[in-house]
Amino acid sequence: MTSSYSSALLDRAVNEFAKLPGIGRKTALRLVLHLLKLDEGMVDQFAQSITTLRHDVKHCQVCHNISDDDICAICANPQRDGSIVCVVENFQDVLAIEATTQYHGLYHVLGGVISPMDGISPSALEIDSLVERVSQGNVSEVILALSSTMEGDTTNFYIYRKLQAFDHLNVTMLARGISINDELQYTDEVTLGRSIVNRVPFNIS
Amino acid sequence: MTSSYSSALLDRAVNEFAKLPGIGRKTALRLVLHLLKLDEGMVDQFAQSITTLRHDVKHCQVCHNISDDDICAICANPQRDGSIVCVVENFQDVLAIEATTQYHGLYHVLGGVISPMDGISPSALEIDSLVERVSQGNVSEVILALSSTMEGDTTNFYIYRKLQAFDHLNVTMLARGISINDELQYTDEVTLGRSIVNRVPFNIS
Repeated sequence: MTSSYSSALLDRAVNEFAKLPGIGRKTALRLVLHLLKLDEGMVDQFAQSITTLRHDVKHCQVCHNISDDDICAICANPQRDGSIVCVVENFQDVLAIEATTQYHGLYHVLGGVISPMDGISPSALEIDSLVERVSQGNVSEVILALSSTMEGDTTNFYIYRKLQAFDHLNVTMLARGISINDELQYTDEVTLGRSIVNRVPFNIS
Repeated sequence: MTSSYSSALLDRAVNEFAKLPGIGRKTALRLVLHLLKLDEGMVDQFAQSITTLRHDVKHCQVCHNISDDDICAICANPQRDGSIVCVVENFQDVLAIEATTQYHGLYHVLGGVISPMDGISPSALEIDSLVERVSQGNVSEVILALSSTMEGDTTNFYIYRKLQAFDHLNVTMLARGISINDELQYTDEVTLGRSIVNRVPFNIS
């Protein structure tokens, strides 16, 4: 037999599923056998949703978020505050911040962080378009909201330097410290150390 | 916004993935975003492998296993012993037994077990075709290899009764007892009790 299963078609579908991140061959087989039991129409619908997405999805021309139109729903919403731009790494970060319902400004999705190890240089990211966006004069605050990793910090700093040229622009970053509900004794020492150095006036909120 | 994400296309693809067993919305989103990063050709290939499988896959006319042809690779293999037929519940059971490399006969895939609770009656399973297959006279042994559950035992017994009519047919079942490497004190009492009652002569193998 050339394939591991009795069917080469099955083998091919399982191989395709097993290429997805976090999906092993056993899970892939389980998913494929599930699809085999469905009506042809439902399977076609499943497959079509993927190809349509890949072929038709766009990136917002303003913030580079995933969008169905040239301008995404957030950028097109007149109720959002266009003077604040939150810089994030990717689409999932937009979801995470939107889920808090605490932010009403716009976004700028970089598409990654600077990482010489992975060959990601600043020019591969949407940094120039951010500078261009700020230079149009309507933005009064840029929030740097990248991950608290070495690459994230490097990217934050790179963008900060690029934005220094703009007078009257407020560049801020997310507050760092002990997580809500975290116990002090289990907090890592770097976070704990920083939150002592960067302590803030006591307030009840 | 009518969708939970900024893109209705994305929303649709995530919904489709989240319908799969064991895939939640977070995992679905992760898989879909992974597909979004791939080349269009690779995504088309992924989607096509699923639709092709669903439209073109067959069931072996002899053993009802999943197959690309009318007769599956196992049934078509002249090196397999056609006088022994192992009755299993589904395709995965065939895989499990094949993985042992200890069995060289053929299979008969029932497509489930009798379960009045789930509305699965004997007529919904490939039992009549098994009886028909045995009646052709080439089969000398039928191994009942269904799960050791109430439904499996019921189905075993139902098939056993159907096959009693055939003289010279050997109906066997899988050996039941303590698993290899299992410690006695942790074996459940039903299994342990049965393995005392059904004890066998000591042999070194």
